[in-house]
Amino acid sequence: MEKRVDVLVIGGGPAGIISAVTARKYYPNKKILLIKSIGKGAIPCGIPYMFASLKNPDENALGNASLEKNKIDVVVDEAVKIERDQKLIRTKNKDVYYYEKLILATGSTPILPPITGIDKENIYPVYKDMEYLKKAIEGVKRSKNVLVLGGGFIGIEFADELSKIKNLNVYLVEMLPNLLANSFDREFSQLAEEKLHSKGVKILTNTRVEEFIGNKKVKKVRFSNGEELDIDCAVLGIGAIPDTKLAQDAGLDLGKGKGLWVDEYMRTVDADIFAIGDCAGKRDFFTRKDIPVMLASIATAEARIAGANLYQLKVVRENKGTIGIFATYVDGLVLGSAGLTENSAKKEGFEVISGNAEGIDKHPKSLPGANKIKVKLIFSKHSGVVMGGQVAGGTSCGELINTIGVAIQERISLSELETLQMATHPYLTSAPTMYPLVLAAQNAGEK
Amino acid sequence: MEKRVDVLVIGGGPAGIISAVTARKYYPNKKILLIKSIGKGAIPCGIPYMFASLKNPDENALGNASLEKNKIDVVVDEAVKIERDQKLIRTKNKDVYYYEKLILATGSTPILPPITGIDKENIYPVYKDMEYLKKAIEGVKRSKNVLVLGGGFIGIEFADELSKIKNLNVYLVEMLPNLLANSFDREFSQLAEEKLHSKGVKILTNTRVEEFIGNKKVKKVRFSNGEELDIDCAVLGIGAIPDTKLAQDAGLDLGKGKGLWVDEYMRTVDADIFAIGDCAGKRDFFTRKDIPVMLASIATAEARIAGANLYQLKVVRENKGTIGIFATYVDGLVLGSAGLTENSAKKEGFEVISGNAEGIDKHPKSLPGANKIKVKLIFSKHSGVVMGGQVAGGTSCGELINTIGVAIQERISLSELETLQMATHPYLTSAPTMYPLVLAAQNAGEK
Repeated sequence: MEKRVDVLVIGGGPAGIISAVTARKYYPNKKILLIKSIGKGAIPCGIPYMFASLKNPDENALGNASLEKNKIDVVVDEAVKIERDQKLIRTKNKDVYYYEKLILATGSTPILPPITGIDKENIYPVYKDMEYLKKAIEGVKRSKNVLVLGGGFIGIEFADELSKIKNLNVYLVEMLPNLLANSFDREFSQLAEEKLHSKGVKILTNTRVEEFIGNKKVKKVRFSNGEELDIDCAVLGIGAIPDTKLAQDAGLDLGKGKGLWVDEYMRTVDADIFAIGDCAGKRDFFTRKDIPVMLASIATAEARIAGANLYQLKVVRENKGTIGIFATYVDGLVLGSAGLTENSAKKEGFEVISGNAEGIDKHPKSLPGANKIKVKLIFSKHSGVVMGGQVAGGTSCGELINTIGVAIQERISLSELETLQMATHPYLTSAPTMYPLVLAAQNAGEK
Repeated sequence: MEKRVDVLVIGGGPAGIISAVTARKYYPNKKILLIKSIGKGAIPCGIPYMFASLKNPDENALGNASLEKNKIDVVVDEAVKIERDQKLIRTKNKDVYYYEKLILATGSTPILPPITGIDKENIYPVYKDMEYLKKAIEGVKRSKNVLVLGGGFIGIEFADELSKIKNLNVYLVEMLPNLLANSFDREFSQLAEEKLHSKGVKILTNTRVEEFIGNKKVKKVRFSNGEELDIDCAVLGIGAIPDTKLAQDAGLDLGKGKGLWVDEYMRTVDADIFAIGDCAGKRDFFTRKDIPVMLASIATAEARIAGANLYQLKVVRENKGTIGIFATYVDGLVLGSAGLTENSAKKEGFEVISGNAEGIDKHPKSLPGANKIKVKLIFSKHSGVVMGGQVAGGTSCGELINTIGVAIQERISLSELETLQMATHPYLTSAPTMYPLVLAAQNAGEK
C-alpha cells in the first residue's frame, strides 16, 4: 500500500503524540499520520506505579484520545527505512508512506549492560509495552526477592513502589557510592536512602552485578565482591540510549553525543525531517555540550517546538539549551532537581557558591501535615546567576522545583531571588519570613 | 531613660523582624534595637487558623527567637514621636532612643467601616494581639451565629475555618457581586463560593451591612435591603489602612496612595529613615500607580531590601514595582493569583488575551489524591508578555502560583512559556503532555 500524507510522525510516545497534536493546532488543514510500533503503550513516568499503587495497570495506558480528537490518523506498524530523496518511508508491513514533513520521535531503548546472564527470564528491562509490562508485574508479584538494578530516579521509584508489595524483599543495587548521584548532591540523595531504608529496602551502593545465575530463570546474583544473593527476578532501571538506527541509516547525523543532531527548531540536517524527544540530541543549557537528558517533560517541550515550526518558524525558541529538571517521590518524600548540582558544576569547571535553607513547609509548623523542607541553590560565583537547585520535602516541592527551573531558564540573579515576591500561605508554604528560596539565596550571598 | 543605638526598628511584625535580622547579616557590628507596641503578637497569615485548626492559639505566636539569635534588643513600648533633626524617637514610657538609621515597620490598622453599632462588643476586627485574639476566639466559640464581613481572602479563610466549629452558623457578607473580586476573575472566585457553600457557609453577596443592632453586645444585623439577621458576633475581614501617623507627624510624605513614599531602596524622603511593609507605599509593577497591596510576603521582601541597604546600597533592587501575589485555601481547594486579573487588566486599559487550561494534578488521574486543576494566564496582546495568572486546584497550586509569579516578574513571553522546561511527576504534577501552564500559554497563542 502507498499513501501520501503531509505530516508523518514516527513514534507513539509523549513526544510523538504532542508533536502531532501541536501540528494540528498550527496547521489545521494538513493530513497528519502517526505510526507507532507498539499497539498499546504505557505512560512512561507512570510505569513504576503500575506495580502496586494503581489498581489496574491499564489505568496507566497511553491512550489515543487526543489523537482522535485532533483528527490524526494512527497506524500500528514499524518504520524500517527512510528514503529521503523520494521523501518516503517503508514499513515492516511493506507499506510506503510519502511525507512533506517527517517527525522522528523514535525514543530510546533501555540499556542492557554486558552482564553475564542478563537475558534470563524474569529479568525485566523497562520497556513501554503494556502487554510486556503486565507480564513483568505478574513476575514481580510472584517473587519473594526482587533486585532493582540502578539507583537513579527510575530505580528508586521502583524500589519504593515494590516495597509496597506484601512479602516481597526489595534490593536496590547501585555502582556509585550514592543514589541519584547525577541529579543530587550527597545531602539530598541521603534523604532518599534513609526513606527507602525505613521502608525495608536493602540498599547496596558501591556494588556491581557480575553475573545473573540460573537456568532459564534467574535464581541468584553474584556481585563483584564475590557475594551472592538469592533473587526471583530483577528490574533494570539503568537508563536508556537514543533509538537512532532508522535515522542514521538514512544518513542523518548524530551530534557529539548519542542523539540525532538538531538545530534550535528540532530540524535535523534534512530541513524536512525533525527529531524530538529521547532520540534527539540535547545541548546543555550552560555549556552547549551534548547531554543525555531523557525526560518526558523535555520531550514534550521539544515536540511543541517541532509541531509549531514544521512549515514556517512560528514559535521562536531562544537558544537556551536543555536543563535537567525533574522531581521524584519516595513514600511521601519529594526530591526535585533543576540545572546543575554543586558536584556537577564543579566537575564542569564552574566556580560556584551554594546557599542552603531548611524549614517547614507550612506555618505555623504545628498545622497538620507539615513537613521539613530543604533547599539548596547553586550560583555562579562571579556572575551571581543561579545555575541549579535542589529541594526535598513534601508534595509542594513538585512545583517548587519548577519555580527554580524558571529562575534558571531566565538566568535570574542572586539579588533577584533575595527580593523575590512570592505567595505564601499557612497551609501551603513556609512562612514569608522563612521562604526557603529567599533564605537559600541569602545564605549564598553571605559566602 | 536615653539610649543610643545604630539601627532602630519600630514594629514587631514580620517586616520589622526581617529587617532587623537582615540588618544583622549585612552589618554584624551595629547595635540594633526593635521597639514593638504589642508584647505578644500573632503570625498574621495564621490568625484564621487559631480558631479551629490549631489546638492552641499560642502555636501561632510570633516569637522572639530569631531576634534573640541575631542579638537584636527588643523593647515593648510605643513610639509616639520622631524628632528627625536630632535623630531620636520618644516613646509612651517617656524613653528616648537615638538612631543612626530608623526603620518604620508600623504596619496597618483594620478598617472600621462607618456602620452604626460597629463598636459593640463581640464585633471583632482582626487585630494581631494574642490576648485580644484569644478573647475573640472565646467569643466566637460561644456563639451560634457568626457573621464574617468581607469576601476577600481574609474573609473567606475565616468563613472556612469557622465552619469547622460545631453548631456554629457562618454567614459571609460581601458588598460586591463576587467573592475575591480583586484578585480573581469570576470563574475562579466561583469555585471558592461553591466550596464554602458545600461546607454550609451562607454567602450573601451584593449585600451591605447597614447597622449592628443590640445594646452592649451585637444581637442582630440589618442589611441595606432592610432584612435582618440574628447574630451573636461578627468578624471584620475587610482590609486595613497603613499606619502612618507617627511618620506623617514627623513630616514624612505619603505617596499618591495611603502609604509612605519610599524610593527603590525603601528610603523615605529622609535618607536615614526607611519604611517597609504595610505602612510603606507600593507601586504597581505594570503601571507604577500606588496600589494597596498588604501581604506579609511583600512586606518581608521589602524588609530584606531595607535591612541590606541601610548604610550602603548593597542589594540592588531592580525598579520592578509590586505585584499582588498570594494563595488562599478553602477546605482543600487552593486558589492562587499573581499579577493582574483579566478584569483588572482591562479596567486599567491593557489590551490582553487570556489562555485557559484544565486538567488533573496527578497522572494518571486515578492515582490517589488527584484533584482538578485550572489555570488562566493573561498576556499583553501585542507584546506577548505574561501579566497575570490564576490557579485553582489542590495543594500543589500553592507553589505553582510562584512559578507564574517568577514568570511575571521576569516578563516572560508567551512562547517561552509554551516551550518551558519543567519537572513533572505522576504523584506531583499534571502529565508533561498536559502541563497546565504550557497549555494555557498555547491556548492564549491560538487566539
